[in-house]
Amino acid sequence: MRIAVVGVGLIGGSVGMAARRRLNAEVRGYDADARVLELARERGAIDQASPDVASAVGDAELAFVAVPVGALGERIDEILAAAPPDCVVTDVGSTKHTIVAGRSDQRFVGGHPLAGAETAGVEHAREDLFQGATWYLTPTSTTSGVLYERLHRALTSVGAQPAAIDPDTHDRLMASVSHLPHVLANVLVTQAANVLLEGGEAMPATGPSFRDATRVAGANGAIWTDIYLSNREALMAGLDDTVRRLEAVRGALEAGDAPAVASWNEEARAHRQALLETGLAGGPVHELRASVPNRPGVVADIALALGRAGINIVDMALSPSTDFSRGVVALWVHGDANAARAQELIAGLGIAVTRA
Amino acid sequence: MRIAVVGVGLIGGSVGMAARRRLNAEVRGYDADARVLELARERGAIDQASPDVASAVGDAELAFVAVPVGALGERIDEILAAAPPDCVVTDVGSTKHTIVAGRSDQRFVGGHPLAGAETAGVEHAREDLFQGATWYLTPTSTTSGVLYERLHRALTSVGAQPAAIDPDTHDRLMASVSHLPHVLANVLVTQAANVLLEGGEAMPATGPSFRDATRVAGANGAIWTDIYLSNREALMAGLDDTVRRLEAVRGALEAGDAPAVASWNEEARAHRQALLETGLAGGPVHELRASVPNRPGVVADIALALGRAGINIVDMALSPSTDFSRGVVALWVHGDANAARAQELIAGLGIAVTRA
Repeated sequence: MRIAVVGVGLIGGSVGMAARRRLNAEVRGYDADARVLELARERGAIDQASPDVASAVGDAELAFVAVPVGALGERIDEILAAAPPDCVVTDVGSTKHTIVAGRSDQRFVGGHPLAGAETAGVEHAREDLFQGATWYLTPTSTTSGVLYERLHRALTSVGAQPAAIDPDTHDRLMASVSHLPHVLANVLVTQAANVLLEGGEAMPATGPSFRDATRVAGANGAIWTDIYLSNREALMAGLDDTVRRLEAVRGALEAGDAPAVASWNEEARAHRQALLETGLAGGPVHELRASVPNRPGVVADIALALGRAGINIVDMALSPSTDFSRGVVALWVHGDANAARAQELIAGLGIAVTRA
Repeated sequence: MRIAVVGVGLIGGSVGMAARRRLNAEVRGYDADARVLELARERGAIDQASPDVASAVGDAELAFVAVPVGALGERIDEILAAAPPDCVVTDVGSTKHTIVAGRSDQRFVGGHPLAGAETAGVEHAREDLFQGATWYLTPTSTTSGVLYERLHRALTSVGAQPAAIDPDTHDRLMASVSHLPHVLANVLVTQAANVLLEGGEAMPATGPSFRDATRVAGANGAIWTDIYLSNREALMAGLDDTVRRLEAVRGALEAGDAPAVASWNEEARAHRQALLETGLAGGPVHELRASVPNRPGVVADIALALGRAGINIVDMALSPSTDFSRGVVALWVHGDANAARAQELIAGLGIAVTRA
């Protein structure tokens, strides 16, 4: 298969590597930055560096547009104009409504792989970036069935799990599970910094709640400004909904309405449990909390003990005490039997452990 | 020293254990639940179970009140009435304004140890729960200096780091670094659940942002309803501030004001960096991201390699891919040299690793 990749950064470069090695495709690449293009060739992300978009896509059967969100619309139109009539063109932008709404060309299918959002650059590209990753596709009533099927098959071959979704639902979903959490993390760190500054306080031991909630604060500005703006409709709707919900909680607090606060909290607990379990194999996820001395190697001991027993750790969070002399390791594992066995194994290391 | 502990759950029980073993104190305990009281005695948390509050505190030099927040005020008054004139009385409630404002007895000092918020029950009590933990104290102009000093010394002896703070600042700080993050986590999971339900979507790979931001959602309702309500003034003010900030971001998004969004994000980045570094020894914290196959043992390999080199892991977050076939391990370590060395060591395991 002849594949064109326009924009050979982390995502484009990884698409090229995976397509060359797993699809045996011939990959032509183009990038506005000549040094990036050369690096992509050196790293084996593309077979051939094209001098312009037209020669990259001139005889392609499949074209990936992997340029920054701000430049995406223009590039897609340029590629649709230059590509053959039977070439499927797809993008990898993190929001879809704006990109898809204006384009009825039967060759275009919007796309969004859930991978690699945290780093950038072809130097981090790798063949297996999409292994196991959900790759959203947004076909419309004008999309060619044959071309959609070609794209779907290619994505499966590079290890991804294609999933068709309506563009608006996609954008609301991303606002909810990615963009809003980033916005709230930003707000939380700024609030905390202001309270501390005003009170002349040094930062206390930040508990797990604060560290977890703000881990993504101030994410890569070059990428995230584009992401926020490109999904601004769904994000604004999400923010409005957040404000409404915060005001509802505020109302319950002001009224001192303990049953309302308790049931609101209980609702969140049920939702979190449901979200953790949706789409995961192996039964419900259980949380274990181990209290450990914060010496190097103690996490390794736990991970090794579980590893030997074949118990995989779904998620993990370390919460050190102020002076880092000890901490709590929260572990999430699948299934009742695994949780019970993991608890035994950790206790067997002389480490206090409880089911949360 | 003769110490009374009223309420012998996780915190009270741990105070008792630490006081007995580290202070060589004689500890009398009382709990409204006779079974809990008996368990505390069996576990060595107290020397003697008292039949009522008065006999527990009758000849105490130091009394800890470790009952649920909702019952705190009444218990403190009861204990102040029964305790000798030279007994210092302190509580461990997570909010301080309401408790402190009404009490001018020179024997009373409000307190709040930052430890153990995630579990409950004397069965989890342990001698070293407070080792290295910040323990806030809220002395006022009426507090006896001699009694404050006695309390301060006792807390240091059980391993804690006492820190005096104004009650209002304390409550705003807790609202900011603990209670607000919990509220926002609850809101985020409920929003996501609604979007998914409405769209008929299965949960996609939730990125690190969503998992991190919602890890504390639906925290123990019995404890947290009390915490939210007892700090409702500061929490409502925090919520108002959150709403104002969200509306400011919304405005920038609506106006399509990229520079405003970028500088807001940059501000958050600077604040997060400052918060991570405040009060931490060993230089700035660096984030490494390792891309790993999600097999049992791989986290152990990394932790072991760093452990052997004496590099401590300050914080860690695992982000699995959809099918759990691989994932990204984010690691935070102190100092430039440690970060560079850790990167070498992880790369030496054949694992792709980048500095974020």
